[in-house]
Parts: sequence; C-alpha cells; structure tokens
Amino acid sequence: MSEEQPTDGEQVSADRGRLSRRRMLGLTGTGAAVGAATFAGGLGIGRATAAEPAAPPTGTSRTYPFYDAHQAGIVTPAQDRLHFAAFDVTTTSREELVTLLQAWSLAAAEMTQGRPAQAEETSYDSPAADTGEADGLPASGLTLTFGFGPSLFRDAQGKDRFGIADRQPKELKRLPHFPSDNLNPVRSDGDLCVQACADDPQVAVHAIRNLSRIAFGTAEIRWSQLGFGRTSSTSKAQTTPRNLFGFKDGTANLKAEDTKDVDTHVWVGGQDDPAAAWMTGGSFLVTRRINMHIETWDRTSLREQENIIGRDRPHGAPLSGGTEFSEPNFTATGRAKEPLIAMDSHVRLAHPTTNKGAAMLRRGYNFTDGNDALGRLDAGLFFLAYVRRPSTQYIPMQMRMSREDTMMEYVQHTGSALFAVPPGAKQGGYIGQNLFT
Amino acid sequence: MSEEQPTDGEQVSADRGRLSRRRMLGLTGTGAAVGAATFAGGLGIGRATAAEPAAPPTGTSRTYPFYDAHQAGIVTPAQDRLHFAAFDVTTTSREELVTLLQAWSLAAAEMTQGRPAQAEETSYDSPAADTGEADGLPASGLTLTFGFGPSLFRDAQGKDRFGIADRQPKELKRLPHFPSDNLNPVRSDGDLCVQACADDPQVAVHAIRNLSRIAFGTAEIRWSQLGFGRTSSTSKAQTTPRNLFGFKDGTANLKAEDTKDVDTHVWVGGQDDPAAAWMTGGSFLVTRRINMHIETWDRTSLREQENIIGRDRPHGAPLSGGTEFSEPNFTATGRAKEPLIAMDSHVRLAHPTTNKGAAMLRRGYNFTDGNDALGRLDAGLFFLAYVRRPSTQYIPMQMRMSREDTMMEYVQHTGSALFAVPPGAKQGGYIGQNLFT
Repeated sequence: MSEEQPTDGEQVSADRGRLSRRRMLGLTGTGAAVGAATFAGGLGIGRATAAEPAAPPTGTSRTYPFYDAHQAGIVTPAQDRLHFAAFDVTTTSREELVTLLQAWSLAAAEMTQGRPAQAEETSYDSPAADTGEADGLPASGLTLTFGFGPSLFRDAQGKDRFGIADRQPKELKRLPHFPSDNLNPVRSDGDLCVQACADDPQVAVHAIRNLSRIAFGTAEIRWSQLGFGRTSSTSKAQTTPRNLFGFKDGTANLKAEDTKDVDTHVWVGGQDDPAAAWMTGGSFLVTRRINMHIETWDRTSLREQENIIGRDRPHGAPLSGGTEFSEPNFTATGRAKEPLIAMDSHVRLAHPTTNKGAAMLRRGYNFTDGNDALGRLDAGLFFLAYVRRPSTQYIPMQMRMSREDTMMEYVQHTGSALFAVPPGAKQGGYIGQNLFT
Repeated sequence: MSEEQPTDGEQVSADRGRLSRRRMLGLTGTGAAVGAATFAGGLGIGRATAAEPAAPPTGTSRTYPFYDAHQAGIVTPAQDRLHFAAFDVTTTSREELVTLLQAWSLAAAEMTQGRPAQAEETSYDSPAADTGEADGLPASGLTLTFGFGPSLFRDAQGKDRFGIADRQPKELKRLPHFPSDNLNPVRSDGDLCVQACADDPQVAVHAIRNLSRIAFGTAEIRWSQLGFGRTSSTSKAQTTPRNLFGFKDGTANLKAEDTKDVDTHVWVGGQDDPAAAWMTGGSFLVTRRINMHIETWDRTSLREQENIIGRDRPHGAPLSGGTEFSEPNFTATGRAKEPLIAMDSHVRLAHPTTNKGAAMLRRGYNFTDGNDALGRLDAGLFFLAYVRRPSTQYIPMQMRMSREDTMMEYVQHTGSALFAVPPGAKQGGYIGQNLFT
C-alpha cells in the first residue's frame, strides 16, 4: 500500500489499510485509487481527480429526522414508493435481538439522511459496509418504520421467547380470520417489520437490503412487498392518488394536519395499556395484501363500479353530491327512495360514522407482482393502516366489510399481519428500547 | 337521463347515453354528474363544478411521439421505470392478430401522449374504455415498444401460424442454451412483447394493463417483469445509474447521440435480410432475467468486487486508470506484470474490442420480486439490449461471458427471450404493418 496518495488534505491511514466508508465515497476517487494504485504503480492516481456528473437520475433531497418522539413514516406525507419486509428472528438470544435493534437504528439514522448504511470504518479487503446501489442518490424522503409482531413475544406454544411476554400489548394479537380471507401463510405475520418509504424505489430497496444484511444470523426476511404507487394521502398538501380500480383512494383519510384526530386515532396513549407503557407514542400497523381481480372489475360498467365504491370515478366525489372532499350524505335518497350511496357501498361501510367514529391513518400502495398462469396480473393494493386500537378501529370494520361490502367480489385478501410500532428512538437510543430496559 | 346538464359548451348526446372517454374526463365532473343525476334528481349537478387539485403526485410531462421512423423506447433516454410483458397469442386467426396490432397501435398512440387508452365513445352503462388509474397523471415520458418472438412465425412443430413464416428474419431464432443458464420456461420466450418505460411506474403499469385488456380473447400475458430503476444510460445527458451490485452500469453503452454507431449496431439495414425487408429500421431485442446472488456478493471484499467488474466502485473508472468515461487500457500491467484489468473481468469480456467490435444498446432495469423461502431477496438485473444482429452482437459475447466471466459466480440467468422489433408505425398505420401487407 506504499503508493497511496492522500488527496484533498484527507489522511489515509495506510498501515491500517482502513478508511471510512463515508470518506471513501466523499473523496474524489481516493478509495478506489488506493486499491488500484497497489497494482498500478501510480496509474490509479489519475482517477483521484475524476468529477462526478452533477444531477442524480431521480429522487428528491428531502429528509426526515430519524430520532423523534414518534417514528417517521406514519404521519409523514406518504412517499411515492414502498419496500416492506417482515422478518423472522432466528436467534434465541435476547442480547442478539437487542444488538440487532441497535444496529438497525444506527443504520436507519444514517440512511434516512442520505448516507451509507454503516458509517464505521471498513477495510478495502473486507466487504463494503454499504452495498452501494444508492451511492450518489439523494435521501429521497426515505423513512424507515419498525414494528414488532405478536410472535416476537410468544412462540406458537405460548412460550416467552425473549423475556418480554409480560409486556406484550393486549392489542397485539394475530388478526382474526375474516370471511373470504384466503391468506398465504408465507405472506403473513412476522416477528419484526420494516416499512421503507421513499420517493425513489432504489433508495427504499437499498434500505431493506442493507437492513436485511445487517440482520444476517439474527433475523431473515419472511416476506416482502414492493409498492409502486401510493394510494393514500397523509397530508392536506398532497393530491389524492388512484388505486388499481381506477378510483381515488383515501380521500377521507386522516391527515397529519389534523393533530387532534391523529392523537385520538393513531398514537397510543400513556393510559391505554399500563403493562405495555413502552408503546406510548407508538401505534399499531395493520398490513393486508389485497389482490384485485382487475380483469373482472374492468368488465363491470362504470355505473356499477361507482355504485360499489359510492363515489364517482372522475373526481372521487360522493354519489350524494358535492366535490371530492364533501362529506357523504348517507341519508340522501333519489328515485324510489333508493339511497344515493348504496347500503353495501365501500364508502358507507368504511366511513367513521358507520363505524362508531373509528378512523384509521391509511398508507397503502399499489402493487403488481408479475402474473398468474392464466395471464392475469397479480396486482392489487398493499393495505397499510396505523391505528391506536386494532380491536375497535380495524377488526369490526373489516369484519363487516368482508361480509357486506360489494367490493369483496373483486378482491381477495392474500396476506395479513399486525405489528406494534413503538415510539421513535431518542438520539443515542434505539427503536424499542423501552421494551427491553 | 333527462337531467343531464351539458357544461362548458360541450354537447352531451343524451339519447345515445354515450359520451367520449376523453370528454368525460376533460369536463369538470359532467360524466359523473350524468350518472349520479339519474339517481339524484339534480343533486349531482353540484359536482359539475368540482375543481381538481392542481399538482399530480409524481411523473413528468415529457412526451415522445408514437408514430415515427423507429419505435420509441430504444434510443429514447432511458426512463426510470419499466413494466415489460410477453404475450402468447391465443387466436389462430391472422385477421384477429392484425386487428390486435392495430388496436394496440392506436392505444399506444393515445397513452404515450398522456391520454386514456381508447378515445372512442363509451357508454356509462358499459365498462369504461380506460381502466382509470392513470387519470390525472402526466404522460411521464411513456414509450411503448412492440416486438415479435420467433414463435409468432412458426409453432413448436415448425408450422406457419399466421402465413408469415417465409418472412421470419433469419436472426430471429430462440436464443441458444448458454452454459450455466437456469431458465424458467414460464419466464422465457413469447409470441409478442411490449416494453413500457416511463418516469412513473403507475403510468407504465397502466399501459401494460390496458394493452392486456385490449388483447383479451386474442393474446394473454405469458410473463411480465417490473423494473424499478434503470441500469443504463442511452443518452449523454444522463448520469450513469448503479445496478444492484452497487456498481455503475452501462458506462460504455451506445448513446443516442452517436448516431453513426446506432446506425451500425442497432438499426436493421435494408440489405440485412431481403426476405425480411419489413424489419428495415427495426432492431432485435434480447431480454434476460439475471438473478443476482446479492447476499453472496455482499460478503465479497470491495477489492475482489472491483477486480470482477474491472472498474472501481465509487466512480466506475476502469482499473487501468482515468475517469468513468476513460477507455479501459487492457494491456496495462502492474506488479508482477499482472494486468490491471483482470483477464476474466466483466468489463474486458463485454468490451467491443474483445468482441470483434460488437456493441449493444443496453436498456436494463433493476428488479426485486419479493424473496425466496430462505429469506434472500429475489433480485437482480432485467437485461434488455437492442442489437442489429444477435448472432454476432450478443450470442458470441454471452457464450464467452457465461464461460469465463468471474461475475457468473454471482448471477444466474433465469429468463430469456429474443424479439424482432419492427420499425415505427406511420400515422394511420400500425406496428408490424409491413409484415402483414
């Protein structure tokens, strides 16, 4: 390594043969020059002055803080792309699990700021600390949101896996079977989850890949899901996107600006569950992989589609009149006293007024995962919803919808999971710290 | 339908109960108001003034013409997202096949300009002419590129399927088996293909879905592939992206600006194959689904990775020195006369100078399709390359690489296809017209 030529006033510790990942990328080619120069007898030095093309191909430079009272990625304005992964913990050691959560938190704090996953020093003769495919891409609004499944607390036999069973939130139970569920067990449940949202899918995929890599030997991916387009707005500044039924989705969603509603419906309060006080400031995440029979839907008349949804397609306005953001009038009737918004329409069955005021913060994504053997697209909605109490905010509504919602003829739920999403980590701390201390 | 209220000076043909798809979306709510008013006794009219939120959630407004000498989506600056589909033709009727190509061409001409798939009139009591999920999204640089597989010309028994066997290009043969291929037949081959590229994945998915819908009864999807990030630049104005090995990919790719090289290496010439003169101005598309063993790769030292690639990771400069766009010096040696760029490195084996000057226009995409049962991401590179002569530009190089390239230890080819991509359609004509007339 005698031919190294530090540049830009940076010190390269040649005898240790190590240089920081961040510095290596920050320097104009030095990291590479060090390696090549070893072979090249000085030839590599020319590369040290290589200039990077300026503009990144995609993405945005916005960043969200990782260390915060609540985890980012919940009320954060929904980013356009998703990579979600559920993990099985493979270790039986509580210490290794805690070490994983610490390492994940550190890596998340780096990556969400647009930096490589691991900032520690690395040797040029070791695997790189970061896998590299997001080098040069901006942070792209990346958020990483972590959750714990019921199986993290107790195994299938009810055994306490990591000495935390007495702290399992009473709301954190495997979701019940809903009528017409057709769940694939390998696409359901999980001990841990990570929701990666970003404006650039390469940034989201990079994050899940590096977290999976960090978990090697401690946890492994059980299932994962890419989402190519958001189907909900979580901020009033966002336009309402469309789902694969072609309709605007999530018009009546909770929005970050309605802080009182968010406090009521999303964040777990200090008195909600005294045995699980570590969840204060956290939330519960329902995930449902909802396949859409889009070929069947596409053969249905526009009138029928609108009656099933209860809104018009062009603007998303309720069929009782008004604009997209008008409140639906469920008592309005038309000819022959028929309700303008059908009794079995989706908007009626999902609306807070017909669910004892229950509301959710939805954060779902459209997905397409290839096609089936009959040439039909394997596509639909990956439903994500954050609620304070699944037992009152999600389960009764879904039970009712799966029985009464006409839309159920066009969808099939193929994956399901519930996770407890702890509050945010403090600077220097880690996600879930209050559960383990 | 007596309560319709035409707005904005538009005429609504009430007695026919039909209104154009485009007008329906263009009018501020009229289409929906028509439907709702039927039930609502006038209540729906209020919606006719609903204003759309201004900003679309994503995408760009750039458009590329559909009718052109060459098909768009080849030398077009590579868009960020991909949805690719291969189709099996299910009809035995030549006429139906031609009708499909005509309908596809019309729909492509609409969608690439940011309009719904079908502009013809539709009834509110019929299925909508467009599936709707791209309503309100800009064109996002959508290109749709169509190709014909060898199986369109002759079936497995060699039988002429549609009276075009005598016009099958001699270059259009099923790709040979390459050493270490592990092809999944249901992810390989196909009678027809459509490559949808756009800046917004929802726009690309919408296009494939609507083309598949139009094909119902004539052709069905055989396999499909989403790509979330481009791995090649096809224009000098673009920065070089990174593949999932973390390296810049396609630095030495053909670029649209090198029109002479493009003419030499991409476009089929009038004298190339007199029996298949209909291909003049077209090209051949090689598709390969290349799974990357990213977990294994990630455990390899950075030095080893760079030696396998033959370039440095931070900047993509050849290991012989210089910057990203410096020509690799394959004769340069370092200590002990070892070549700076290893003999079995990817850059050496793929380079035109070691392939009798053969070059390709690459247009590949990173993909992640969930994970396998061992928790490893099902991820890699969906390789797309346009060449004038597969027999000299792709097959010998791939044969050599699959034997000698050290990178082959980290990848597995799991899908393969070759398509003849005809020239562009003339205004009023359709893709492949010269093949059928």
